Amino acid sequence: MTHPPHPLGRLAALRAELACLGVDAFLVPRGDAFLGEYVSPSAERLAWLSGFTGSAGLALVLRERAVIFIDGRYTTQAEAECDPATWERHHLIEHPPATFLKECAPGLRLGYDPWLHTEASLARLTDAGALLVPLADNPIDRLWHDRPAPPAAPAEAHALAFAGEASSAKRAAAAAVLRQEGQRAALLADPHSVAWLFNLRGRDLAYTPLLLARALLRDDASAVLFLHPDRADAGLLAHLGPEVALHPPDSMAEILAGCTGWPVRIDPDLTPAALAVLLREAGATPVPGDDPCRLPRACKNAVEQNGARAAHHRDALALVRFLAWFAERAPQGGLGEVSAAVHLLDLRAEAPEFVSESFPAISGAGPNGAIIHYRATAATDRPIGAEEAYLIDSGAQYRDGTTDVTRTLWTGPGAAPEDLRARYTMVLRGHLTLSALRFPAGIAGPHMDALARAPLWQAGLDYDHGTGHGIGSFLSVHEGPAGISRAAKPVPFKPGMIVSNEPGFYLPGAYGIRIENLLLVSAAALCPGQTKPFLEFETLTLAPYARALIDAAALSPAERRQVDSYHARVLAALAPKLPADAVAWLARECAPL
Amino acid sequence: MTHPPHPLGRLAALRAELACLGVDAFLVPRGDAFLGEYVSPSAERLAWLSGFTGSAGLALVLRERAVIFIDGRYTTQAEAECDPATWERHHLIEHPPATFLKECAPGLRLGYDPWLHTEASLARLTDAGALLVPLADNPIDRLWHDRPAPPAAPAEAHALAFAGEASSAKRAAAAAVLRQEGQRAALLADPHSVAWLFNLRGRDLAYTPLLLARALLRDDASAVLFLHPDRADAGLLAHLGPEVALHPPDSMAEILAGCTGWPVRIDPDLTPAALAVLLREAGATPVPGDDPCRLPRACKNAVEQNGARAAHHRDALALVRFLAWFAERAPQGGLGEVSAAVHLLDLRAEAPEFVSESFPAISGAGPNGAIIHYRATAATDRPIGAEEAYLIDSGAQYRDGTTDVTRTLWTGPGAAPEDLRARYTMVLRGHLTLSALRFPAGIAGPHMDALARAPLWQAGLDYDHGTGHGIGSFLSVHEGPAGISRAAKPVPFKPGMIVSNEPGFYLPGAYGIRIENLLLVSAAALCPGQTKPFLEFETLTLAPYARALIDAAALSPAERRQVDSYHARVLAALAPKLPADAVAWLARECAPL
Repeated sequence: MTHPPHPLGRLAALRAELACLGVDAFLVPRGDAFLGEYVSPSAERLAWLSGFTGSAGLALVLRERAVIFIDGRYTTQAEAECDPATWERHHLIEHPPATFLKECAPGLRLGYDPWLHTEASLARLTDAGALLVPLADNPIDRLWHDRPAPPAAPAEAHALAFAGEASSAKRAAAAAVLRQEGQRAALLADPHSVAWLFNLRGRDLAYTPLLLARALLRDDASAVLFLHPDRADAGLLAHLGPEVALHPPDSMAEILAGCTGWPVRIDPDLTPAALAVLLREAGATPVPGDDPCRLPRACKNAVEQNGARAAHHRDALALVRFLAWFAERAPQGGLGEVSAAVHLLDLRAEAPEFVSESFPAISGAGPNGAIIHYRATAATDRPIGAEEAYLIDSGAQYRDGTTDVTRTLWTGPGAAPEDLRARYTMVLRGHLTLSALRFPAGIAGPHMDALARAPLWQAGLDYDHGTGHGIGSFLSVHEGPAGISRAAKPVPFKPGMIVSNEPGFYLPGAYGIRIENLLLVSAAALCPGQTKPFLEFETLTLAPYARALIDAAALSPAERRQVDSYHARVLAALAPKLPADAVAWLARECAPL
Repeated sequence: MTHPPHPLGRLAALRAELACLGVDAFLVPRGDAFLGEYVSPSAERLAWLSGFTGSAGLALVLRERAVIFIDGRYTTQAEAECDPATWERHHLIEHPPATFLKECAPGLRLGYDPWLHTEASLARLTDAGALLVPLADNPIDRLWHDRPAPPAAPAEAHALAFAGEASSAKRAAAAAVLRQEGQRAALLADPHSVAWLFNLRGRDLAYTPLLLARALLRDDASAVLFLHPDRADAGLLAHLGPEVALHPPDSMAEILAGCTGWPVRIDPDLTPAALAVLLREAGATPVPGDDPCRLPRACKNAVEQNGARAAHHRDALALVRFLAWFAERAPQGGLGEVSAAVHLLDLRAEAPEFVSESFPAISGAGPNGAIIHYRATAATDRPIGAEEAYLIDSGAQYRDGTTDVTRTLWTGPGAAPEDLRARYTMVLRGHLTLSALRFPAGIAGPHMDALARAPLWQAGLDYDHGTGHGIGSFLSVHEGPAGISRAAKPVPFKPGMIVSNEPGFYLPGAYGIRIENLLLVSAAALCPGQTKPFLEFETLTLAPYARALIDAAALSPAERRQVDSYHARVLAALAPKLPADAVAWLARECAPL
């Protein structure tokens, strides 16, 4: 896919289509019919139309105007990628499409592709006064002549040795929930749930081992998987078993006709409007409710937990080899952001269990580290200079687990400036508080977000992103429902959840600091005489903090002990499997503060 | 009012009334038509019927059964006060009336007094399958022959010297909000808003200087105050001014007839169903929205802030005299919970500005301190023994401000046991963290609740109440909308809000610990180079922590400095106005740790 620098021709062609269809305007979200974070090249309609390649955004094409809505992360990128003479830019959150429509274009006939929006998101536009017109076919698809083919690689079984629980048992438990709530079936619109429920994986997306498929789970634990039969071989059919019928996606209306008169659960946040319409046309009653796989998927079972430990150990071996290499090479200068990230990828890829990166690595030197969602490209690639801060946020997909880790480094050879060390140490203190936290059952991420920020807050500083997100088990690196952010829904932590702990601090134009480990939620021992269950975190990530950036005098004795004890654990776990030069570096880095 | 030990006669009489009215059951909440925390004796219908005198509860009277719903605070008290042969007890939160009705008595005709419930609370019962029948007159009132007269004391002007802003200015600002949101008027059902908006106070309740009155505020800033004209003298009419018309409460329907066709804002959480019905009958459209006075009332202006400082200084002089007296007398034994609380009240009452206590003092020795809402009475009064913990939570109403303070003391003469000191110190550390917190604008109480709990959590301990509540300015000791609790709505803190900081720990059967100061939210100085506004707290309460209970070795150097600095401030502020013996005690207590 290429993005021509002047997409005016495409816009004009789209406007002509819209006129034929009798609508005044059209919505082009960045997203596909599966509403996930990553999309396949065949669904990059927003990039095709506007040139914008960020991970979140929405275009509104009117007769005389073309508007792109993006959030604060992408202001600069949208300015560079979308011709300002053609595209107006608005803030997706502060001045969203509903507000824009109300103020600037009330009462127009607004076309949309019902596969790319939830009913809730459409309702906001109706409330704003637009007359919404669903279009049976997306007009962009008719114009996009060199559109890549949609993903069609074979589905893969996710072996019980990694999944830890058979699909039949998962389906039985989810079906029991449906029966308890009086629903005859659930329509699973989210491929993550399909992957988890049937122990399936795929290669439809670059960073998440997903199969873009949906399913219907009935209250007797039988199910229909909507997937083209070409994508399932005999082995896969055997894996699915006799209770799971395979039907092509275009047979969905036919299959749903068997649900006439049924209450069918759909998750309103994860289900495209088109699916809700299909259900109603089939005579079923859509019942809004949480995706029944979402919470059990987040609570990793014992096999998945052990897989996560193994994956993190393996990942740490690659990362520490990278860090030792970096420590030796960086003071001489000459490294680049792209080449450093590629070297880390190469080291990870040496492991036979490696499948892919879990997201595009963020490799930011000096001021680029302050761009929270920076992605180094040939165009932006910056030499990593001596005596500057370097931020590397990366992760991998292994069959037994997904990793995500951030370290901020000092290239040397001279000492880091005092203000950088002071701020790194504040970030570290928040990170340590969260890692060591014990808390009663019932506590959720929004309640503990402040603990990671308090040391920065005391200095009048903060960071403009959440503190942590859930992570899948050989699934998405961003997984709900629990997260550590004030904006997140307060979903209480449960044993087996894996969540990131990644406070940061960013000084625009100068440097970025972020320290990220993954934490596994586990039950804590009860205090004598107390009966209320408590939880605590087990740190999965094994990599030293940046010794050159720690101001040990600003840590309390307990914090120093915590760092020393973590470093001792890292050294003991990794040294036996590392080459001698990496061990030597790691031993120095992990010596008591 | 007396509560006969066997209220069976009253229940039987009520059932006969209900049969005549054609209903199967009747709801008797603890609360009056103003839906506040405190009620006048004339509205203590639940106590009259059941004997239960707690501050929260609800009775459901059926033909054959009588059920009282109470929360965890009142289990023991309800058992003692309500004849168990007559009254079944259920948990108000865990097994609420709606659940009970669904399970045990579906489909019955349930009578209710529409002045005592919000429409939202009634909707939950309808959802549970009850057929709700509003009763024009409360049947209890017809049976309660010696019912006290409703409050009728004169309304009092709250002088500008205390209120800091004229009613006309407050009304103009609130009316501007109504105009902006397209509402023609707001019906103010909450007497706290009426008191604030018109700068009025009264003596209708024992602990809150309220006038039980409602008002209609129009979008042109004119208003109607619903209050019997007998309660307003010429001075008060002059205070109200020409834009505020006075009408008796029973003329409300007549006045609301002037709102025909208007959208009229009502706060669904604060408005009895009867008022919403009146509005609809008048042809107006009730529009749900926050009470427009709630947020501005919570943000105290500069005059109110200075009033709060003066009130707390005055209150602290009484409290420190009490503490010095207690320190001398307690080791000898012979003090009682009631007499100690009375002595503190007497000391407070010496100040000419003293109006009343702000709530019934909680004076709990040893195990009674572990009862979170304990109220010492002649029946429960416990001698305060030597060498035990004593908890005193009390406050006062002064014209310039409302106070609320808790200290936990050790009676001596011997040293406090190590476990008590350890836990007191954990509670103190949480309290200190919150007091010293700086935080960005936008942060709300639910986000910081964990900061006060973390030291206890690390030891597997917790407390079963919120960390803090808002406080009025010569108004209610519990004032919304902001509070520090996970359960509270996340209302961001604003400069001028006053909130309590009161973590605790309770060991049933042994002791209770709670440390409470009031905090005033204020703008913090910006960090150089940062533009995001930050807030911080100014501690209003001036009283030493219990030196005998602090384990200084468990405090960090920063925490020790914080205690020393607070104690130095307390000593400097109070010593000039205290008698010599109290100064001597205070100086010892406030010496650096």
